Amino acid sequence: MSLHLLHSSAEVQRVLEPIRAAGQIIGLVPTMGALHAGHGRLMDAARSECGYVVTSIFVNPIQFNRGDDYDRYPRTLATDVAFCAGRGVDAIFAPTAEEMYPRPQSTFVEVDRLTDHLCGRFRPGHFRGVATVVLKLLNLVQPGRAYFGEKDAQQLAVIRRMVSDLNVAVTIVEVPTVREPDGLALSSRNQHLSVEERRLAPVLIQALRAGQSLISSGITDADAIKREAARAFEKHPPVRVEYLEIVDPDEMQPVANVTHAVRIVGAVWIGKTRLIDNLLCLPGSLSR
Amino acid sequence: MSLHLLHSSAEVQRVLEPIRAAGQIIGLVPTMGALHAGHGRLMDAARSECGYVVTSIFVNPIQFNRGDDYDRYPRTLATDVAFCAGRGVDAIFAPTAEEMYPRPQSTFVEVDRLTDHLCGRFRPGHFRGVATVVLKLLNLVQPGRAYFGEKDAQQLAVIRRMVSDLNVAVTIVEVPTVREPDGLALSSRNQHLSVEERRLAPVLIQALRAGQSLISSGITDADAIKREAARAFEKHPPVRVEYLEIVDPDEMQPVANVTHAVRIVGAVWIGKTRLIDNLLCLPGSLSR
Repeated sequence: MSLHLLHSSAEVQRVLEPIRAAGQIIGLVPTMGALHAGHGRLMDAARSECGYVVTSIFVNPIQFNRGDDYDRYPRTLATDVAFCAGRGVDAIFAPTAEEMYPRPQSTFVEVDRLTDHLCGRFRPGHFRGVATVVLKLLNLVQPGRAYFGEKDAQQLAVIRRMVSDLNVAVTIVEVPTVREPDGLALSSRNQHLSVEERRLAPVLIQALRAGQSLISSGITDADAIKREAARAFEKHPPVRVEYLEIVDPDEMQPVANVTHAVRIVGAVWIGKTRLIDNLLCLPGSLSR
Repeated sequence: MSLHLLHSSAEVQRVLEPIRAAGQIIGLVPTMGALHAGHGRLMDAARSECGYVVTSIFVNPIQFNRGDDYDRYPRTLATDVAFCAGRGVDAIFAPTAEEMYPRPQSTFVEVDRLTDHLCGRFRPGHFRGVATVVLKLLNLVQPGRAYFGEKDAQQLAVIRRMVSDLNVAVTIVEVPTVREPDGLALSSRNQHLSVEERRLAPVLIQALRAGQSLISSGITDADAIKREAARAFEKHPPVRVEYLEIVDPDEMQPVANVTHAVRIVGAVWIGKTRLIDNLLCLPGSLSR
C-alpha cells in the first residue's frame, strides 16, 4: 500500500471521502512530528484498531507561548515520512501554518478549570491552542478514534473533556508512555539535551516514582509526599523544578489527601529544555 | 411521514445513523422554540435543499446573561411540534438542559473580535454560549447544512466564523428576515409586548430604513447617518436605544465611512423587552 502525503484540507477530503463512504474506521494520530517510538506506539494502537490510519504532522504556532520554543521545535519531515511508512500509516496530513490558519484565528476553544494548574499555569494560552488545533484536526479528518499519549496527561484530560463537552463524535484513546531504559519518557524535546543534561534527565521520573511508592505505601498527605519526592532533585542542582504536584486525574486539581487514584505530575527545566512526565498512582488502601 | 420527537443524543444517533449511511443530506434548523413564520422560512429552506430536516428546540441556559430573561423566555413545545409537522420537518431534537449539560460545562468556544461590539458588548458571555451550543448541536446532528436567520446578523457572523476557523464540515445558510406588514421583524420576544408597546415596536426598523436610505443616497459619514437615523426614536420616548451602529458585515466592526457594503444594526428596549434588527446596505456609489 502507498502512503499518501497530504498538505491541504482539500486533499484530505478527496482521499478520505471514499474511506468514510466505505464505512472504514479512520484512526487519527495527531503529532508535531520529530517522531519517536512513543508516537510509534500510538500508530501501532491505531493500526490494530482502525481500517485506515492518518498521522497529522503540524507544529501548531498558537500553542507555543514562547516564540523561541516554536522556532526551535525540531522539524524532520523526511525522516517522519519514512517513520510513518514503517509503521503502516496510510496517510500523513502535513499542512502549512497558512493552510491551518488562512487568516488570523478568531475562534478558540477554552477548557476552564482543568487548565488552571500545572502546564496550564506556566504556559499561558498553551491548552487553548492545543484544544483549538485538535478540534480543527478532528473536524478535518473526522476520525472514529484519535490517539494521544499518557505522557501529556493534562493535554489528554483537556482533550477528553473538550470532546465530551462539545459532543464530538470521536473516541479518545490513551496510550501508555514509552520510556528509555533509564526511565526517561520519550519526547521530541529530548534531542535538545546535551550529553551531560541527558544524564541528569531521568531525575524527573525518579522523583515521580518515589512519590508513587509513598502513595502506594499508604501515605496520604500530599504535601509530605511531594516534599519527600522532591528530594530526588536535591542531588542535581542544575535541574530547576517548575512544578511537582499531585492531582485528581479528571479535573487536574491538586489534592491535599490521597484517597482515590491520583496523578503525580512534574515539569523540570534542564538547561534550556523543559521536560514533563507523570504517573498514575493508587493509594495504599486501594492498591493492597 | 411521521415526525420523530427526540429528547436524548442517543436517540438522535439511532435515528440519524441510517439517514447518514444512506447518504442523505441532513439539514439542521437550530431554534429556541416559540416558533413563528421566521423559523418557518428556515424550515422551508432546509426542506427544499435537504433530504432530511431536523429542528432543534432548546432554550440554552449558557447564552443568557440574565436569569430573568432565561426564565421568561417562552416555552411552547406542544405548539412547536405541531408547527414543525406542518412544515414537513422529519425530526425534532428537544433535549433537556441536563441532557445538553450533564455536568458543569468546562469547554467554551470563544469568537474574538466579532463579538466585541453590538450585542456582544451588552450581553457578556452571550455569544460564547451561542457558539458553544451551536457547535454541540452540529456535532450531535452532523448536518450537511444548517440554517440561521439574517435577523440575528451578529450571531450569524459569529457562527460562520466559528465554522470556518474550526473547519466544521457544514454549510451555513443565511435566510432572510420575515417581517410583519408594518416592518417589525418576527421574534419570539414580540409576544412579551403589550398592545401599546407593539404599536411602538416598528420604530426600530424605521430607524434602520432611514439609515439605509441615507447610505444608498450617497452619504458616507457613519456618524451623520446614525445621528439622522436615530431621529426616528425621538418621537417615541418610551423606547430606549441600546445601540444603533453601522458595521462591516464580516468582522462586525463599526465603520467611520461607508465605502463598502455595511450592516446597519440596532437594539432597543421597549418596556422590559429587548428587540434587535438589521439591514444590509449598499453605499450610493455601489447601488447606483
